[in-house]
Amino acid sequence: MHLANDDPRVNGTGQTDYGKHVVDGLKKAEHIEDTAVKKLSEEHDIVLKTFRLLIADLCQQFKGGHPGGAIGMAAIGVALWKYVMRYAPHTPTYFNRDRFILSNGHTCLFQYTFLHLTGYKAMTFDQLKSYHSDRVDALCPGHPEIEHEGIEVTTGPLGQGIANAVGLAMATKNLQATYNKPGFDVVSNHTWCMIGDACLQEGVALEAISFAGHLKLNNLTVIYDNNQVTCDGSVDLTNTEDVNAKMTACGWDVIDIEDGCFDIEGLVEALHKARAATDKPTFINVRTIIGIGSAVAGDAVAHGAAFGDADVANMKKLYGFNPEEHFVVGEEVRKFFDDIPERGEEFVRSWEKKVQEYETEFPELGAEFRRRIAGRLPEGWKDLIPSKQSFPEKPTATRASSGLVFNPIAQACNSFMVGTADLSPSVNMIWKGKVDFQHPDLKTTCGITGNYSGRYIHYGVREHAMAAISNGLAAFAPNTFVPITSSFFMFYLYAAPAVRMGALQHLQVIHAATHDSIGMGEDGPTHQPIELANLYRSMPNMLYIRPGDSEEAAGAWITAIEAKHTPTIISTSRQALPQLPSTRRDGVAKGAYVLEEVEDADVTLIGVGAELSFAVEVAKELKTKNVKARVVSFPCWRLFEDQPLEYRRDTLRKHQTPAVVIEPYAPNGWERYANAAICVKRFGHSLPGKAAYKFFGFETGPMTAKVGDYLEKIKADELLRHEFMEL
Amino acid sequence: MHLANDDPRVNGTGQTDYGKHVVDGLKKAEHIEDTAVKKLSEEHDIVLKTFRLLIADLCQQFKGGHPGGAIGMAAIGVALWKYVMRYAPHTPTYFNRDRFILSNGHTCLFQYTFLHLTGYKAMTFDQLKSYHSDRVDALCPGHPEIEHEGIEVTTGPLGQGIANAVGLAMATKNLQATYNKPGFDVVSNHTWCMIGDACLQEGVALEAISFAGHLKLNNLTVIYDNNQVTCDGSVDLTNTEDVNAKMTACGWDVIDIEDGCFDIEGLVEALHKARAATDKPTFINVRTIIGIGSAVAGDAVAHGAAFGDADVANMKKLYGFNPEEHFVVGEEVRKFFDDIPERGEEFVRSWEKKVQEYETEFPELGAEFRRRIAGRLPEGWKDLIPSKQSFPEKPTATRASSGLVFNPIAQACNSFMVGTADLSPSVNMIWKGKVDFQHPDLKTTCGITGNYSGRYIHYGVREHAMAAISNGLAAFAPNTFVPITSSFFMFYLYAAPAVRMGALQHLQVIHAATHDSIGMGEDGPTHQPIELANLYRSMPNMLYIRPGDSEEAAGAWITAIEAKHTPTIISTSRQALPQLPSTRRDGVAKGAYVLEEVEDADVTLIGVGAELSFAVEVAKELKTKNVKARVVSFPCWRLFEDQPLEYRRDTLRKHQTPAVVIEPYAPNGWERYANAAICVKRFGHSLPGKAAYKFFGFETGPMTAKVGDYLEKIKADELLRHEFMEL
Repeated sequence: MHLANDDPRVNGTGQTDYGKHVVDGLKKAEHIEDTAVKKLSEEHDIVLKTFRLLIADLCQQFKGGHPGGAIGMAAIGVALWKYVMRYAPHTPTYFNRDRFILSNGHTCLFQYTFLHLTGYKAMTFDQLKSYHSDRVDALCPGHPEIEHEGIEVTTGPLGQGIANAVGLAMATKNLQATYNKPGFDVVSNHTWCMIGDACLQEGVALEAISFAGHLKLNNLTVIYDNNQVTCDGSVDLTNTEDVNAKMTACGWDVIDIEDGCFDIEGLVEALHKARAATDKPTFINVRTIIGIGSAVAGDAVAHGAAFGDADVANMKKLYGFNPEEHFVVGEEVRKFFDDIPERGEEFVRSWEKKVQEYETEFPELGAEFRRRIAGRLPEGWKDLIPSKQSFPEKPTATRASSGLVFNPIAQACNSFMVGTADLSPSVNMIWKGKVDFQHPDLKTTCGITGNYSGRYIHYGVREHAMAAISNGLAAFAPNTFVPITSSFFMFYLYAAPAVRMGALQHLQVIHAATHDSIGMGEDGPTHQPIELANLYRSMPNMLYIRPGDSEEAAGAWITAIEAKHTPTIISTSRQALPQLPSTRRDGVAKGAYVLEEVEDADVTLIGVGAELSFAVEVAKELKTKNVKARVVSFPCWRLFEDQPLEYRRDTLRKHQTPAVVIEPYAPNGWERYANAAICVKRFGHSLPGKAAYKFFGFETGPMTAKVGDYLEKIKADELLRHEFMEL
Repeated sequence: MHLANDDPRVNGTGQTDYGKHVVDGLKKAEHIEDTAVKKLSEEHDIVLKTFRLLIADLCQQFKGGHPGGAIGMAAIGVALWKYVMRYAPHTPTYFNRDRFILSNGHTCLFQYTFLHLTGYKAMTFDQLKSYHSDRVDALCPGHPEIEHEGIEVTTGPLGQGIANAVGLAMATKNLQATYNKPGFDVVSNHTWCMIGDACLQEGVALEAISFAGHLKLNNLTVIYDNNQVTCDGSVDLTNTEDVNAKMTACGWDVIDIEDGCFDIEGLVEALHKARAATDKPTFINVRTIIGIGSAVAGDAVAHGAAFGDADVANMKKLYGFNPEEHFVVGEEVRKFFDDIPERGEEFVRSWEKKVQEYETEFPELGAEFRRRIAGRLPEGWKDLIPSKQSFPEKPTATRASSGLVFNPIAQACNSFMVGTADLSPSVNMIWKGKVDFQHPDLKTTCGITGNYSGRYIHYGVREHAMAAISNGLAAFAPNTFVPITSSFFMFYLYAAPAVRMGALQHLQVIHAATHDSIGMGEDGPTHQPIELANLYRSMPNMLYIRPGDSEEAAGAWITAIEAKHTPTIISTSRQALPQLPSTRRDGVAKGAYVLEEVEDADVTLIGVGAELSFAVEVAKELKTKNVKARVVSFPCWRLFEDQPLEYRRDTLRKHQTPAVVIEPYAPNGWERYANAAICVKRFGHSLPGKAAYKFFGFETGPMTAKVGDYLEKIKADELLRHEFMEL
């Protein structure tokens, strides 16, 4: 889930027993050139050589980076960027462009260099040469980043990209089924995904592969850079499976390319075939040689380290280039890619014309399509949310509240693609009349069917892929889709790497996480989150919100839907919670707010989410003991941190009044807002919800006693007030 | 990664369009009984009926739980516990017992009931009936827990169990290759793992399956309860792959059982065949019907909810039982399992005799084997660690320090099984003469081979499976193995669900996590941890330690190796760090300690791990500005929390002196120990390590200025001192 940027020859460990299987790499490279060059036109020959030497130079420049993969994949790149992919370098966000995902993101120079050669304006030669430099505005980071022209998603953590690609292909399918009309295929793009040996080992990729096969995504092609090398050596150290048979079993078409370093024609043919696939995604298994041309060709050390000056010079000699010259891109190579920007603009013009005709023919759909492209929701979506008064009066689980709030919106707004990791009966995300996103021919045993215009996704028990695929849906175009995922909160630990990638990429994905505390009960400590909130509360660009009742659930969803560049986790209860009279949806938007104010308070009780009502109960009980407690509802740290200092001080009054937070989680981080916590620092316990609360002391009586004791203690020892206490 | 304990009929959502494909489940059940009963002996018939009704009653009692799977798997259980597995109910920890793992842990009643019937003493009838009760000392939690007799690992989060099983099978292989001699197979146990449809969708399971096939673990059998139902409905809603072909492609033998609800003979034959497998793990694909006999047989609602009184009564009628009677286990059923405890004791006696003879024949090996069984390391392991003086004087990356400290221990002590997720060149965990754990026939392209006595494991790019398999290794017997995993720290987010399961189970697994801050450099924000430490610092029973130099690395490893019931993450730097004169390994054991004391200090600087030396530098610089700074090294929160209050107060002196922590992570949680933080709250940036530090202001000059400004500010406004500030 990485690939290392460390050269054993450099890092001083002397651990060099890996990957030396090509002792005479140079000879091998020569031999391959001899046999392969026959297939190559002169033009292709010079392009490949130029590209490979450029990569070698770019890594040699700062003596680091990942040259081998990019060099091995050169012919694949030529086939894609020159002959197959439909894109527009001068209009990088052209809506109907093919999407290209580099799942083996460490080979980023592969993509950067083709972006440069094909005329992406931001990727100047200077920028290209910024790879591994200390230039802070470089467009060539160590892994591709979505912020930069021509990059569809940020990759690097292995396996994510291929799952993103599945999401991108699903986005296309959904738009096609929703908007395309005979003669008006306003969406027709294909998704291409490069992967390496490592991606095929990662669980998230295996989940996504299985799911893509199920969905029969014929608009998705995965190109496998099969160089049989990873950091530790040859792949057969750890993986000896029959990958083609595995992909076939997963419902993919498989095409083999034997000479992937040079057979551009064969690659082009395979890619065209893949684009024309009728009922399955395509897996192109391309044999390549990592670092071909270098002395370490085929060797693990070609992967994550520059080749060294001597080797690069030798490569140049071998290729008939001047070893003294660096970064050479000849005129013929420039010319080879010359036609691409204009070809791209022609794609753009012809698509724009088609959409205009479509708007004339189908004015309503056309307008909606434009709105979706612009990433806007229909006006008035917020009016669909019940008012505080119209929520049920009876105690209601916040997972049910989530449904009450969101399902009418999902029903009305087709930007929302709502999925669950096999917890439909539990997460309450099904709206009236929902249609499943499925291949239209699917006949399930249980009788449920769907089609590609459906927006409810059964991800299966694949939490990690669910989140990563949702990132892909969100990345298709800004806010054209707003993906929703759902599962038990605890299983967002499985999904965490992908949730993080969403936050890093500023993708709006909303995660409906239920069963969010020990109150979830019998399933026990494996299912009861204790420490997980701390991950998400600390994660940059992430909103983690725990609403306390239906009204606060409304606030959480409004906040999440309005956060166009930030993912949100809405963390809800399994069990019914009382509807509290003073909760306010606009309070949630501020992160924390005063729920019950008291003058000259002895203590502030901070209540959170499923346990907010506990704070209210304890305050009531304290009153009978002549202790004045104010109550603050605190659903979200980050939203609160964004408030002005004055608001924060007024809300917490921490300097005047000691604060006790009530939350059955590990308390770390609450020290900023509270002086003490009624909390849990061990793992949970399998008991019915109420019994679990009792077991951990979360009953009104014991909690009230704890707060009372605490107030006595800090009266006796002032120091303690400034020393966070776990009660 | 769950399976829901929620019944849509109960939770009030009314979302009942799922899983109703068996409208007339009762009829279907009857039909199956009709055809199947011919194969059944009278004895088996009554056992299966009794078992199934018992499960139905146990769930009906408190109207909850997971009856369907357990009921469907009854025949599998009879085959395993009565005819195939070698175990000893009266000596549950018998070392050479077969290991049974219930990866679909929500069907725990399946296991609990067989534990009861086969005579495990702790599992009394009363205890069995505690399932879903509010009895706090119940041995029947909602998922199996390792603490209880007869349970090998805690399961529940789906996919974990099968990966644990791979680890358990590897443990057997390693012990066999290390200790068995002709005529003395002192270790010969088999590992059996039940899985459901959901496990086969989880990435961690798919990683583990691929790896087990590679290793040719012929001592591992996975039994697939193929009932084609998960929470959302029939499995074909989300998964339509050819699972047998996939398993074959992954290097497994596949056996099909068509009538898994009743064909005990066929199952026994298949299981015996699996135990006798010569060169592959075995996958037994057993078709079953979830909740067979109930009106909801074959339906998703049979999965996670009690059947209701009427349905249970109907089942009893169908089976010829009295519908008024509950929890009926007839004498003939008791008798059926009667022989098992004594059979088990015979296994124990005969094994014990064999080991005694082995000790006579091979006294040294025998003594070592006994030591391993007792979970002890050889005496003197600590003496293998270099003294502070003998570490290199030059700046040394703590990942290299890890190797200096631990590799001699790994070399000398064969309890350690050391693995890496394809980062051998980066993590420095290879000791002199290490042998890989591999099938002895493996010939790799890169020339590296191994055998099952090897203790270095190439897990491939499978971080999650690596951690879950390591839990299995650790669970084989207490501390017989001490598994080590290694990867970049950031990728312990991929591994997190399994790391958590290790902590929950009190398994000693040590995770060597390198590249642990923005200082890791060019790989960029996808690889730079910001928030991850907060997850592990908050996780119960987890030690997260960031050593600051070689000496502290020694302290971290000593602490980790001595923590027999707690996993540890040793979090180290990619880049070279200065060796600091005042660091102390025994200081690490206390979590935090004073590195540089100053009288009448103006400020305490808290330094951590890779950035500890920054605190030292800033203190030095502050001195030139007449600001007196003391320095505290703070490698581990949890160890510090375990110290007496006095030690904690003396170390921090928080009441006298304001404290500033320096760590390029999200600061949440440091509020307990510091008043301010020089920290990072956004994602990282792809730059060379030093440039990344500079970009985020982690240079001596700017940091010194920040501390100075802060001290001025709190002089001006005393309130600020008690308000955590991010500088």
